Amino acid sequence: MQRLTRKLKAQGVQFGFVPTMGYLHAGHISLVKRARQLVGKTGQVVVSIYVNPTQFAPTEDLSKYPRDLAQDKQMCRDAGVDILFVPSDTEMYPAEFSTYVVEEKLSRRMEGASRPTHFRGVTSVVAKLFNIVLPDVSVFGAKDFQQAAVIQRMVRDLHFPVKVVVAPTHRERDGLAMSSRNKYLNPMQRDQATVLWLAMELARKQVKSRSVAVERLRSEISKLIATQSEARLDYVEFFDRETLEPVEMVKRGTQMALAVFVGKTRLIDNGTL
Amino acid sequence: MQRLTRKLKAQGVQFGFVPTMGYLHAGHISLVKRARQLVGKTGQVVVSIYVNPTQFAPTEDLSKYPRDLAQDKQMCRDAGVDILFVPSDTEMYPAEFSTYVVEEKLSRRMEGASRPTHFRGVTSVVAKLFNIVLPDVSVFGAKDFQQAAVIQRMVRDLHFPVKVVVAPTHRERDGLAMSSRNKYLNPMQRDQATVLWLAMELARKQVKSRSVAVERLRSEISKLIATQSEARLDYVEFFDRETLEPVEMVKRGTQMALAVFVGKTRLIDNGTL
Repeated sequence: MQRLTRKLKAQGVQFGFVPTMGYLHAGHISLVKRARQLVGKTGQVVVSIYVNPTQFAPTEDLSKYPRDLAQDKQMCRDAGVDILFVPSDTEMYPAEFSTYVVEEKLSRRMEGASRPTHFRGVTSVVAKLFNIVLPDVSVFGAKDFQQAAVIQRMVRDLHFPVKVVVAPTHRERDGLAMSSRNKYLNPMQRDQATVLWLAMELARKQVKSRSVAVERLRSEISKLIATQSEARLDYVEFFDRETLEPVEMVKRGTQMALAVFVGKTRLIDNGTL
Repeated sequence: MQRLTRKLKAQGVQFGFVPTMGYLHAGHISLVKRARQLVGKTGQVVVSIYVNPTQFAPTEDLSKYPRDLAQDKQMCRDAGVDILFVPSDTEMYPAEFSTYVVEEKLSRRMEGASRPTHFRGVTSVVAKLFNIVLPDVSVFGAKDFQQAAVIQRMVRDLHFPVKVVVAPTHRERDGLAMSSRNKYLNPMQRDQATVLWLAMELARKQVKSRSVAVERLRSEISKLIATQSEARLDYVEFFDRETLEPVEMVKRGTQMALAVFVGKTRLIDNGTL
């Protein structure tokens, strides 16, 4: 992969890159389309599929994470992807692997608090993929808002020669954010999973014309989540879009993020209020 | 700098890179010559000068580290350097900087044990410089043997598209390894500083035709260092060249590294026995 990119880059070819964990859905394909727009017809669009073990905790869903390479290949072909990069664990993590990339501020709260080793795995694998694929531009989904912020910070701090673009969250018709993990939901859980979107709609309505204290909003959202038998709130946070610093009063423009277990499946979502 | 390299690399130009902290001496120039050999006349040789604050502990010699940019420029000109890159602290460490590269095995002992935050600063700044300069090959001095090993591990683990070359230590006529820090030594200390080289010669003689237990060799070297009134041993270690794992029996081919305070100046050296 790296040999190919280095060769083509020395000829002036631009690369657009969409890193994924596979089990592709319409959300991923929207990122592919954005990458194509950014590099044009003469550029190369690369998709990687790699379920990165270092971003999963031992208790998490690494082994059962959904996979379907045949279908992924077909979707990439249909979407006009030029290069599909599917590295193995031994290629990505050679024996005696001992180097990590760590972001120490934006990665602390929310997903970083619920999943303490998660972002270190994410920053390390994205740094590795950037060094292999050598993209000029890379597209990430807004569904993983904190991840996108951490990657942008990493790129700025370590001066990666990559432009990071964050593309909008793709949603089902009832508002549920598209995610490979939705596959885990049984039909009842799938219905109840809409509660993440309903929670954001509730918050949007509340702050439409006034500021609301975080604790009051959090309490209303907890109650809403509790109405769904399969749902359990992990966290809901309200924070500044740029600094990711939590706010005390929530208003229009505040960013909201939440994580909810639906059955055993942990779903996340976020949006600007 | 990055704009320039990206432009030239898209035209197929090769880059050779020598990162330094300035106050250049003949040792640095030997690295520059190696870089030129590696990229040829059509390549670009880049030298960076940056005294990186994150690799110094608060108690160390950051503020008094010797600097002479005018002389460095002249030496680079004379050596045929194409590009001299001298970034500022605010360019290298923007506000709210929060991302580091950490190597967690090879960096633990020796310099890592004596200077706990040192290698994290080194790996982070070298990753940053690699991403800015985008070299095809980068040359490091063998005097900092452990540093070179840590950088090689980082490059392998994070897949940097850079070939790392380690060039031999340049020495004064009496064996003292060239170092910008030799500038701190008064004439008596300068004489006594030869003890690092004498310690390696002693070890080489001892293991020429047999194995010797580490503790015995360490004791003899401690005695030798103690004969010099200004010298104080920080550490002496014997280890495998590849794995950096300490050995119990020292023999020909074992790697030796030591750090010695001469007055207040901390000097390091190493060699294969």
